[in-house]
Amino acid sequence: MCRGTAHLYFMLMDNSTHVVIIAGGIGSRLWPASTPETPKQFIDVLGVGKSLIQLTVDRFRPLCDPSRFWVVTSSGYTDLVREQLPEIPEENILAEPEARNTAPCIAYSCWKIASSHPDANIVFTPADALVLNRDVFTGVIKSALEFSASREAVVTVGVMPTRPETGYGYIQVSGAGTGKVTKVISFREKPDLATAKAYLADGNYLWNAGIFVWNARTVVSQFRKYSPGIAAVMDRLAPHLDTPGENAALKELFPQCEKISIDYAVMEKSPDIYVIPAELEWSDLGSWSSVKSHASQDADGNSVVGGDIRLFNCRNSMVHLPAVRKAVIEGLDGYIVAEKGGALLICRLADEQNIKEYSADK
Amino acid sequence: MCRGTAHLYFMLMDNSTHVVIIAGGIGSRLWPASTPETPKQFIDVLGVGKSLIQLTVDRFRPLCDPSRFWVVTSSGYTDLVREQLPEIPEENILAEPEARNTAPCIAYSCWKIASSHPDANIVFTPADALVLNRDVFTGVIKSALEFSASREAVVTVGVMPTRPETGYGYIQVSGAGTGKVTKVISFREKPDLATAKAYLADGNYLWNAGIFVWNARTVVSQFRKYSPGIAAVMDRLAPHLDTPGENAALKELFPQCEKISIDYAVMEKSPDIYVIPAELEWSDLGSWSSVKSHASQDADGNSVVGGDIRLFNCRNSMVHLPAVRKAVIEGLDGYIVAEKGGALLICRLADEQNIKEYSADK
Repeated sequence: MCRGTAHLYFMLMDNSTHVVIIAGGIGSRLWPASTPETPKQFIDVLGVGKSLIQLTVDRFRPLCDPSRFWVVTSSGYTDLVREQLPEIPEENILAEPEARNTAPCIAYSCWKIASSHPDANIVFTPADALVLNRDVFTGVIKSALEFSASREAVVTVGVMPTRPETGYGYIQVSGAGTGKVTKVISFREKPDLATAKAYLADGNYLWNAGIFVWNARTVVSQFRKYSPGIAAVMDRLAPHLDTPGENAALKELFPQCEKISIDYAVMEKSPDIYVIPAELEWSDLGSWSSVKSHASQDADGNSVVGGDIRLFNCRNSMVHLPAVRKAVIEGLDGYIVAEKGGALLICRLADEQNIKEYSADK
Repeated sequence: MCRGTAHLYFMLMDNSTHVVIIAGGIGSRLWPASTPETPKQFIDVLGVGKSLIQLTVDRFRPLCDPSRFWVVTSSGYTDLVREQLPEIPEENILAEPEARNTAPCIAYSCWKIASSHPDANIVFTPADALVLNRDVFTGVIKSALEFSASREAVVTVGVMPTRPETGYGYIQVSGAGTGKVTKVISFREKPDLATAKAYLADGNYLWNAGIFVWNARTVVSQFRKYSPGIAAVMDRLAPHLDTPGENAALKELFPQCEKISIDYAVMEKSPDIYVIPAELEWSDLGSWSSVKSHASQDADGNSVVGGDIRLFNCRNSMVHLPAVRKAVIEGLDGYIVAEKGGALLICRLADEQNIKEYSADK
């Protein structure tokens, strides 16, 4: 107990911890609630009074002072970030000149943090995922930070799967002990259903939560080894960081980075990748069905987010409307009804994979 | 041919014809497209680019100069009338101080018209019904006007029924010859289905279109005989008509009128009631189903009014949205989807009789 308390005290006070929230997604999957103008991370998907990025900050607050939170987003969203996260210093809101996937995004934010905090130990996290059991999560991230602080190691979070989910990537381990750091054997792309069932039965495959914990020196070192092109761009950018010329240099150099995910750029090449298996109620909220499964439900299995919404003879349906909307909805079973910014969607949940095609600009 | 042309010429030039559009309804049946703020007569129910009251004026224009159109409405709607019908003289827009059903409304507008046009021959018509075959309709109204011009007679329009409709009142005749003025035997309230079927089989029952054609002297005379209370109120109002004191007198006297329909006040008591049976495609558009049956339909039986509305796997559904709305609607069969002014309705057409209850203010 005594050691635990001291350990907690050490972690809470550890000024080397930084949290980088990656918030560049344009979020077409929850259309029309999520749109390129206001993607999913900035909306109150679950009707809890906070956007997903605000929930993400809440989740990491026990581990890190707001002055050491960073957000990387595209320039179109910096106003939204400032508005929704006023506690984060304005200079910690980093705007990518253009979207070049996660590897350049992580490299830039790391080089940037390292220029003023060379000893930083950094958590990179998506802005738009959901974790329900926060205490477990806090413990997992603490363990990851402790492990990554003094090693050349990238620690990821692997969620113990509860169903043969085909919408997530998987992390293969050899023997997954909850809460213990273990070596990653391989990363696996989103599987088909048969493969997902085999993963679940096998027990050594975890959902990839897209969280990476590594110290700044490790990030730089891993990029130099496995993605030297991006590292070279960042080294050219380095002299301009925290100077009046940063933005101009970023605008010129950032687009020269290869457009590649951190998984391909580093994770799948490096032997230094670890994972902490965790029993988390976690979701990427990547579909209306997954939102529905995490929103509160009435006795008939309906989830309602919005204002004056009256359901009659409805079952297993998800309704997501602006708070000002009055709605009467009758006779739906297994539907999504969503509206925002002048766009209305009514669709069977079973057919939601077609929403993108249905809503595409003609 | 020659006689017909001369007859048409006479009718078109007949300056005694006046048309009174009764536009006081608050229209809860097509919620949320129709609301107390903007009831059905003022909206483009069918997506044809004109509201029902504009279509009503269009329908009567071959018979009457705009200077002899009158609209009786409640004071809350006079701005809407002015906006939608700029060709009607402002002084012909009459505002009832309060809703007291159709008898006081008809009496007031008749006494008002008669004060400047004692020889007026008047058509009273609802503002919110639909007639598709206009030429037939024009002929019927001409015949009615010709008949009522010089007789103490009220001529109604009886639509030849095409189905056992339970939503309309009926007019009983003895032998219904299309286009010929015939005596009314009785008015019948909305029947149950068995009665409606018997009416249809009998052949002597017509749908009551709620149109009354009578000259101003007949209106006054019939009110004196069958609704002397209302006639007495109007006689007290008469000296104030077309004076600066009209509104004040109206405000004091009109509410003293019995709240009663013209059917009960006059039609069911008088022996002087006639009807012209007409083969008209006519509807009171009193339900979403009836709107749907008169709106254009795609190959799957869907009727769509609105802007960028995309249907997938939908059948037999009615969609009525504001022109600015983008919508994707998937997997509905037999539904109404309607929205206006911040209120959304999704309901099975088969259950639409419950809309009023569903949408009632809690």
